[in-house]
Amino acid sequence: MSRATGARVLVVNGPNLNLLGRREPELYGATTLDEIETLCRTTGEEHGLLVDFRQSNHEGVLIDTVQEAGRHAHGIVINAAGYTHTSVALRDALAAAGIPIVEVHLTNIHRREAYRRTSFVSEAADAVICGAGAHGYVLALTHLSHLLENKDR
Amino acid sequence: MSRATGARVLVVNGPNLNLLGRREPELYGATTLDEIETLCRTTGEEHGLLVDFRQSNHEGVLIDTVQEAGRHAHGIVINAAGYTHTSVALRDALAAAGIPIVEVHLTNIHRREAYRRTSFVSEAADAVICGAGAHGYVLALTHLSHLLENKDR
Amino acid sequence: MSRATGARVLVVNGPNLNLLGRREPELYGATTLDEIETLCRTTGEEHGLLVDFRQSNHEGVLIDTVQEAGRHAHGIVINAAGYTHTSVALRDALAAAGIPIVEVHLTNIHRREAYRRTSFVSEAADAVICGAGAHGYVLALTHLSHLLENKDR
Amino acid sequence: MSRATGARVLVVNGPNLNLLGRREPELYGATTLDEIETLCRTTGEEHGLLVDFRQSNHEGVLIDTVQEAGRHAHGIVINAAGYTHTSVALRDALAAAGIPIVEVHLTNIHRREAYRRTSFVSEAADAVICGAGAHGYVLALTHLSHLLENKDR
Amino acid sequence: MSRATGARVLVVNGPNLNLLGRREPELYGATTLDEIETLCRTTGEEHGLLVDFRQSNHEGVLIDTVQEAGRHAHGIVINAAGYTHTSVALRDALAAAGIPIVEVHLTNIHRREAYRRTSFVSEAADAVICGAGAHGYVLALTHLSHLLENKDR
Amino acid sequence: MSRATGARVLVVNGPNLNLLGRREPELYGATTLDEIETLCRTTGEEHGLLVDFRQSNHEGVLIDTVQEAGRHAHGIVINAAGYTHTSVALRDALAAAGIPIVEVHLTNIHRREAYRRTSFVSEAADAVICGAGAHGYVLALTHLSHLLENKDR
Amino acid sequence: MSRATGARVLVVNGPNLNLLGRREPELYGATTLDEIETLCRTTGEEHGLLVDFRQSNHEGVLIDTVQEAGRHAHGIVINAAGYTHTSVALRDALAAAGIPIVEVHLTNIHRREAYRRTSFVSEAADAVICGAGAHGYVLALTHLSHLLENKDR
Amino acid sequence: MSRATGARVLVVNGPNLNLLGRREPELYGATTLDEIETLCRTTGEEHGLLVDFRQSNHEGVLIDTVQEAGRHAHGIVINAAGYTHTSVALRDALAAAGIPIVEVHLTNIHRREAYRRTSFVSEAADAVICGAGAHGYVLALTHLSHLLENKDR
Amino acid sequence: MSRATGARVLVVNGPNLNLLGRREPELYGATTLDEIETLCRTTGEEHGLLVDFRQSNHEGVLIDTVQEAGRHAHGIVINAAGYTHTSVALRDALAAAGIPIVEVHLTNIHRREAYRRTSFVSEAADAVICGAGAHGYVLALTHLSHLLENKDR
Amino acid sequence: MSRATGARVLVVNGPNLNLLGRREPELYGATTLDEIETLCRTTGEEHGLLVDFRQSNHEGVLIDTVQEAGRHAHGIVINAAGYTHTSVALRDALAAAGIPIVEVHLTNIHRREAYRRTSFVSEAADAVICGAGAHGYVLALTHLSHLLENKDR
Amino acid sequence: MSRATGARVLVVNGPNLNLLGRREPELYGATTLDEIETLCRTTGEEHGLLVDFRQSNHEGVLIDTVQEAGRHAHGIVINAAGYTHTSVALRDALAAAGIPIVEVHLTNIHRREAYRRTSFVSEAADAVICGAGAHGYVLALTHLSHLLENKDR
Amino acid sequence: MSRATGARVLVVNGPNLNLLGRREPELYGATTLDEIETLCRTTGEEHGLLVDFRQSNHEGVLIDTVQEAGRHAHGIVINAAGYTHTSVALRDALAAAGIPIVEVHLTNIHRREAYRRTSFVSEAADAVICGAGAHGYVLALTHLSHLLENKDR
Repeated sequence: MSRATGARVLVVNGPNLNLLGRREPELYGATTLDEIETLCRTTGEEHGLLVDFRQSNHEGVLIDTVQEAGRHAHGIVINAAGYTHTSVALRDALAAAGIPIVEVHLTNIHRREAYRRTSFVSEAADAVICGAGAHGYVLALTHLSHLLENKDR
Repeated sequence: MSRATGARVLVVNGPNLNLLGRREPELYGATTLDEIETLCRTTGEEHGLLVDFRQSNHEGVLIDTVQEAGRHAHGIVINAAGYTHTSVALRDALAAAGIPIVEVHLTNIHRREAYRRTSFVSEAADAVICGAGAHGYVLALTHLSHLLENKDR
Repeated sequence: MSRATGARVLVVNGPNLNLLGRREPELYGATTLDEIETLCRTTGEEHGLLVDFRQSNHEGVLIDTVQEAGRHAHGIVINAAGYTHTSVALRDALAAAGIPIVEVHLTNIHRREAYRRTSFVSEAADAVICGAGAHGYVLALTHLSHLLENKDR
Repeated sequence: MSRATGARVLVVNGPNLNLLGRREPELYGATTLDEIETLCRTTGEEHGLLVDFRQSNHEGVLIDTVQEAGRHAHGIVINAAGYTHTSVALRDALAAAGIPIVEVHLTNIHRREAYRRTSFVSEAADAVICGAGAHGYVLALTHLSHLLENKDR
Repeated sequence: MSRATGARVLVVNGPNLNLLGRREPELYGATTLDEIETLCRTTGEEHGLLVDFRQSNHEGVLIDTVQEAGRHAHGIVINAAGYTHTSVALRDALAAAGIPIVEVHLTNIHRREAYRRTSFVSEAADAVICGAGAHGYVLALTHLSHLLENKDR
Repeated sequence: MSRATGARVLVVNGPNLNLLGRREPELYGATTLDEIETLCRTTGEEHGLLVDFRQSNHEGVLIDTVQEAGRHAHGIVINAAGYTHTSVALRDALAAAGIPIVEVHLTNIHRREAYRRTSFVSEAADAVICGAGAHGYVLALTHLSHLLENKDR
Repeated sequence: MSRATGARVLVVNGPNLNLLGRREPELYGATTLDEIETLCRTTGEEHGLLVDFRQSNHEGVLIDTVQEAGRHAHGIVINAAGYTHTSVALRDALAAAGIPIVEVHLTNIHRREAYRRTSFVSEAADAVICGAGAHGYVLALTHLSHLLENKDR
Repeated sequence: MSRATGARVLVVNGPNLNLLGRREPELYGATTLDEIETLCRTTGEEHGLLVDFRQSNHEGVLIDTVQEAGRHAHGIVINAAGYTHTSVALRDALAAAGIPIVEVHLTNIHRREAYRRTSFVSEAADAVICGAGAHGYVLALTHLSHLLENKDR
Repeated sequence: MSRATGARVLVVNGPNLNLLGRREPELYGATTLDEIETLCRTTGEEHGLLVDFRQSNHEGVLIDTVQEAGRHAHGIVINAAGYTHTSVALRDALAAAGIPIVEVHLTNIHRREAYRRTSFVSEAADAVICGAGAHGYVLALTHLSHLLENKDR
Repeated sequence: MSRATGARVLVVNGPNLNLLGRREPELYGATTLDEIETLCRTTGEEHGLLVDFRQSNHEGVLIDTVQEAGRHAHGIVINAAGYTHTSVALRDALAAAGIPIVEVHLTNIHRREAYRRTSFVSEAADAVICGAGAHGYVLALTHLSHLLENKDR
Repeated sequence: MSRATGARVLVVNGPNLNLLGRREPELYGATTLDEIETLCRTTGEEHGLLVDFRQSNHEGVLIDTVQEAGRHAHGIVINAAGYTHTSVALRDALAAAGIPIVEVHLTNIHRREAYRRTSFVSEAADAVICGAGAHGYVLALTHLSHLLENKDR
Repeated sequence: MSRATGARVLVVNGPNLNLLGRREPELYGATTLDEIETLCRTTGEEHGLLVDFRQSNHEGVLIDTVQEAGRHAHGIVINAAGYTHTSVALRDALAAAGIPIVEVHLTNIHRREAYRRTSFVSEAADAVICGAGAHGYVLALTHLSHLLENKDR
């Protein structure tokens, strides 16, 4: 049995991700956030992870959620969307959590506007995956599972 | 009868605009936000627009409101105040709304601090009106009405 | 009778605006400068304003015209086009005019090349309207009328 | 009896400060926010100040709180934490409050990441104290008391 | 049988990666490049991919290799190491290849020296994975397999 | 007979080029503008082009001339001299002309002052030739002839 | 008799200087351009200089005038006003003139907007005098006379 | 008896602070440096500190003084005035002193010229207090006393 | 017989130019490098030049080639492609060659990504031709022939 | 008798000016500082000014001298040489002096290294004269005399 | 006998250094690379060092060479020439070598073009010597010998 | 007997170097300045140089000393410490000295804070040696001796 079995993982999504599938699909793809949640739950089950899936447009709610994860969860997958580039407060919450963090972006942010190339979240994340679309969440959970399995041996 | 008749328009106001009339009147004028709401309603009636007037100090609430407008309204007038210059998340919500957007600022932001010259909102807005004081809302609604009347003909 | 009645307003247009309707119509629209002049005259009549409509490709002529307005007119609407971003001299002429000034741009200059985001004219203007196409001139004259009506009461 | 006696002072704390004592103690020290609250109350009592102590991870809540203080309190001590460097909206709320403001930071932000050296809050604050740890709150309240005592004499 | 079965994938490694396991292991980990090759071959077999694994310290050889892949392979995984940040020529070769590309970095380059945050490779890559150590290659191949399976359906 | 035969080409020269041969000859060479005109006419005859050769120190005159060429000529060779680096208005006139444009500079502007490396004209030109001295005009006309011959086949 | 006796000096004034005395007198002083001309003529007479005094709002006219001075005059005093900061073309005309040049500004441009601190004219001038008001013209002519008297004849 | 009792503290003042009370009192206040010295001595007595109070306009003298304090004193309060922003040498002397350092500024330097926002002293100081006027010295000595009392003895 | 007759000219092509005709033809055109070689040979014959045509993806090979040309050839035409913007080493080799150099780019690099606007090669080249497509090589050889014919007479 | 008669003027010279005539004479001229002192005394006598002429290589001595002038003199002529560009402390001393100040530089600092274009002294000076060599001191004293004569009438 | 006796030292030279003595001798001196090799061998013998002397124009070859030295040599002297300023890959190879490194430049790179002031090599070197011409190699070997002699005692 | 025999060399040390051995020894080493003086004297004797060894914390004293050396000495070794990065005045004194200058830094300043990478001293020095610790002084004197021996023969 994997060491990661039973680990609790927070998958937290930032502003406007609730619009996925409808918002600029040529940019963000046709997959909805519900479908990504299903994808995450399936992937979590494969790796024995308990997935807690959240979305909020509120920076403060995202910080509260990350703080809570710092107390109760074993890892975080975060797509901070628009707050990625502007929130020192969210970065500080992640840095304080003390658990493995994987940052995800649906698009390759390096090919977009200059202000999307700065990520405060990346400073606090262990790994960063971008441009892999919805599949990026699968990769992120797979990596988190890998990290939890190989921890402290 | 105008094509704009019956169109729903969101007029959304950002942080500290609830203080208008009291906050630095030499800079922002003596008109209160209630008076601006009245001005907007009167102007809306003249153009046959249904005006939904909101204010919040919370970035997340503003994003929720804009998302909701994206589903139910035909146009947005936005004065994002302090979030204008810092919120990629609000910009993304506006860009996703898919309806005409007019940005308003009471003051001429080009004459103020350097950091007020950057507007993430402007990237997502169709038109921008600044420095016209409370009358800027009247101009914005007039323009929105003009856009809605001339759409798709 | 409105206080603005009989006020003289200069509407001054900068370089290449004489090409409107032919020059990159997907960017600047199909309306010609003649049609904008007609629009301005009609709007002027509605507000009791005497409209003096000019265009020049010459920075010096524009400065001469603005100086003249400073002596004989009650307000200025200016679309300085390419000189907007490069002319300190025009800015100084406007600042010296001592009458209300509304800056207009057909396009939303905040969505274009970086060098179009700097406006020397904005420093000297009271209000700025951009991205509203030809209708922006109507809004500008409306606002000028509003300013003249509410002056010194 | 001191002139400051009975003055109401808001001590407002920004995001992640609720984690104090647990979050990176080598950086932020071992004192918890509860202990800082006690410290503030004790200091307040010594100076005859009524201390209203708050913390929130939500930028909007912090703005609401500052606006409320602008109406009911006589001074503000603020540690805006991560919002210090990014919130024009919070800066505007403070600037509108019209009462003495002392900014506090536990750490010497000038020795940290480059983005922590920019403080929008400092533009609106009267005095700034950083690097004095929890004791900085004591100094801030002492200074606020000093300001209130010496006002308008 | 998966659509990706039999697809040829180039895994190309840039300068100094031949030193892995010996070079600054506290930064780059203890895994050698041979072990990463084995990891890639194993992962390739799981996904039915034929893995061509290369390393060179020569920018020109890397460009030749990428050009060749553009003619004969179906996807590229690239860790360009030091050339990531300086090679427009390698970026151009990748952009010309016309097949899916996943960029990998062992470390989270966003936490390192400023000059490591600029990646010319990212401009030409579809997805970017960094900070996942040797496991990043597994994720990259998994994603490439996912892309090849879902192509043109 | 060449397709370019009879095509009208404007060769337009900016400020101070009338001083050629006298002004800093160690930098700009000993050839006068009259000699360059002769060179252009000879080259034009070889290629069957009708050359209209102009010079002005006035930005507005240059814009008028380019606009006129946009209506009556088939191609433009332009050496905008000092306006190259500062005139958005001239760039806009060129962009609106809708005919092939070749930019010429006598000197290699990349070896000179930093402010000479920015060319607004280059944004609107098809090709740029610099550092070839008076011979650069020959090359420019040759290229224009080449473009006109190979157009729309 | 002084060596400078009979030397011809051009005093050339840029845009908006015709407004002196009326334009922002708190900034530019109450002296009119006519009074400055008189001052220059008187000073010229004292030094035996023939003063040719000009003003234009047109960059091209200023360049023509400077070129003409390069052929017929022995020195130039120039206050390029708004073109000081933007005109490479005027700088090139001055550099080509080959006679002593003294730049004058009424105000101390180093205490004003950042964009007024860059002077293309200064690159081509021998001496620069700013902040001395109308008296700066007297100093400039005095210095020109000094230069002409001490020139290697 | 406090642990800080008998500790020697250097209060060192930089250039032009000897002019206090006379120099721009609307900016720096009406308190003279003699009065600040008295204030410091009184505060020192309250905390059992021996205060050595110095001022010099000479950077070298300030460095000598700080070096001397490094050998004989237990703490430093420094207002480096104009050298704050330019002296790497003073910063190095402070960093070498090896005792607690509190930086003081009378004004809130964050509200002044851009070049006053950079402080080399802050890099070497433990705590920074600005904008509290003469009272800032009291706070600084209070904090130094607090630090000395709580030091690991 | 021309003085240039029998002169040896190196035409050297940088990385990825071997892909011409296949690589992004909408950007680089449909002409292959073989066709450009033929074009260069034909042009060389017309001018009596012996053309040595090379391409390499290796910076070091390009430097070796340029050094060799410095010893045996009379002129260089260089399209350094991706190395244009990054290679100080290639620039130094060209600067050391001591023979006329013409830089060529197929596209107008001033209309592309910001990093393509910096050319180290331009610092060492006599003339630069860009945006003329394959015909740019013809112009470059024509200019080199012109330079060789007019040398040292 | 002139109002300036008997006024005391400090002429203060910064570092390395004692080397004048020997140090890089092609740049700074052959006149020695003693000769400049004589020139200043003669000029002073003509205008009825008592000239106090000083030079020091020590920033602190310069500040002391300026402070002293603030108490006893009626005007300052300052050539701060190398401290011009680096001394905030000297700028503050000048700003505090409260008497007319004319800044002088022997060379035209706008034509030299970039770091010589920033002058802290200019912020505190009324007028600035540069590039006029030793004669600049004459102009500066003449202007100071002019200012003192026209003061408070 | 010295501890450094028998130590193997790599002296590695970058692009275009094979041209020394012929390439711009007024800049780089008249000494050839062969003469520098002789100088190094002589110096090596004096210090008991075995000198392995290399030059390549190929970045990849230089990296291979440095990697090899990391395995077999005890110290490196490197003059990376043009790659100094652009090669992160070479910097990484040096950082991985784990032996003392002395960087040499013939010229004082701080007096040359801005882009020559950035050295990636310096980040990985222990000591840097520039501007000492060929003698710099002697100093570098002397220092390397000094380091090897004093190691780990 | 060497030509350098009897040459006088100034070794001048800037601020805080008198603290060597005590100040941050992990950064600057355990060698004291007295020991460095001894080292310099010994090295001087070996090369027949008369060493004048100085240290001062005062910028003005350092300038006086360098000026004096310009009159009486044959070469300068300078470690300007903190003034390296800020003193244009010291740079000017060195540039005026007209004798060979070698700059020394104990540490490799390229690996430290960004502001330590700018050296005004380097602009005036012939050679620069950094990161070689106390041994750097030996290398500097050796190089100075080499320069003096090989001068103008």
